[in-house]
Amino acid sequence: MVASPIARLIQQLAKLPGVGEKTAARLAFHILRAAPEDAAALAAAITDVRQKIRFCSTCCDLTESDPCAICRDARREAGTVCVVAQPQDLMAVERAGGYRGKYHVLHGLLSPLDGVGPDDLRVAELVRRCADGAVQEAILATSPSIEGEATAVYLAKLLRPLGVRTTRIATGVPIGGELEYADQATLARAIDGRREM
Amino acid sequence: MVASPIARLIQQLAKLPGVGEKTAARLAFHILRAAPEDAAALAAAITDVRQKIRFCSTCCDLTESDPCAICRDARREAGTVCVVAQPQDLMAVERAGGYRGKYHVLHGLLSPLDGVGPDDLRVAELVRRCADGAVQEAILATSPSIEGEATAVYLAKLLRPLGVRTTRIATGVPIGGELEYADQATLARAIDGRREM
Repeated sequence: MVASPIARLIQQLAKLPGVGEKTAARLAFHILRAAPEDAAALAAAITDVRQKIRFCSTCCDLTESDPCAICRDARREAGTVCVVAQPQDLMAVERAGGYRGKYHVLHGLLSPLDGVGPDDLRVAELVRRCADGAVQEAILATSPSIEGEATAVYLAKLLRPLGVRTTRIATGVPIGGELEYADQATLARAIDGRREM
Repeated sequence: MVASPIARLIQQLAKLPGVGEKTAARLAFHILRAAPEDAAALAAAITDVRQKIRFCSTCCDLTESDPCAICRDARREAGTVCVVAQPQDLMAVERAGGYRGKYHVLHGLLSPLDGVGPDDLRVAELVRRCADGAVQEAILATSPSIEGEATAVYLAKLLRPLGVRTTRIATGVPIGGELEYADQATLARAIDGRREM
């Protein structure tokens, strides 16, 4: 018989995305055997993240302080806003380095089939920022998926009348990728998007 | 920039086995978006499991109360002890149903290459139980792996002189398995272990 605190932990861990019963059991027994300070740090980090994190009132990213560190940073160009679906995407662009503008996090993508419309995303906040006149360019950096493309097209139509230049991230064969293994759609886009050199 | 409570949570989650940076980020953002009571329940379950779980002084399973529920259960045959490597294995045997004896959890398998000897396992506790004379049969239910077999052979040699009947779980083609896909060793064992019918 499983002692109930273990069963409860397995049950809670199994609620995490991509974690089934067996993985949850493996994680639970790891937590049981880990150093006590590691288990305590994990529990504290979970509690902490829920208590301290809120949305930035400017860019809608998750932040500890409002406005967030990027929105507060005067060295970053306020005129360029990179529009992403999720905080994870913002992290990915930051990791890539080189981008010196600001961000806007939509918290999702338009998906009529799943009932996700513009009102479910942080679109009104983006329009408000752009209507101020402070934004010259919105880089639509949603994924090149069906929902990502649809969201980018929708936002471009919405922002252009406000005098904002709207651009879309480039699609093509990834750096280090093999032409041989690129899918047809990617390869077709890469050829369409070819540049002089 | 990632707000530091999120970064800390990702860092803590990435310490779990089989969880890399990207999975940790996905889990962290799930926890951020989950119902507040789910996040709180997960944090509490982690803290709880470390505070409330100890080893059963009889069978060495993880338990909330000592002796554990199975060791306390007078309806289970005290004369039969199923010896398993890990608490997870005990859970698997219990899930299978039908077994009405007791257990002994070794907390590992002999593995000389990794420096794991009998003193690193709960072998002394098993010998003590068997020396009492209350145990008639020890079912050696370690996995049919190299370490599992070696541990079973070692324990059989140790327990037989104490007058304990030692048996080994059957190996063969799994129920529902296809002969065609069974590996050579399993198939050879299945043929060696054939029974009258």
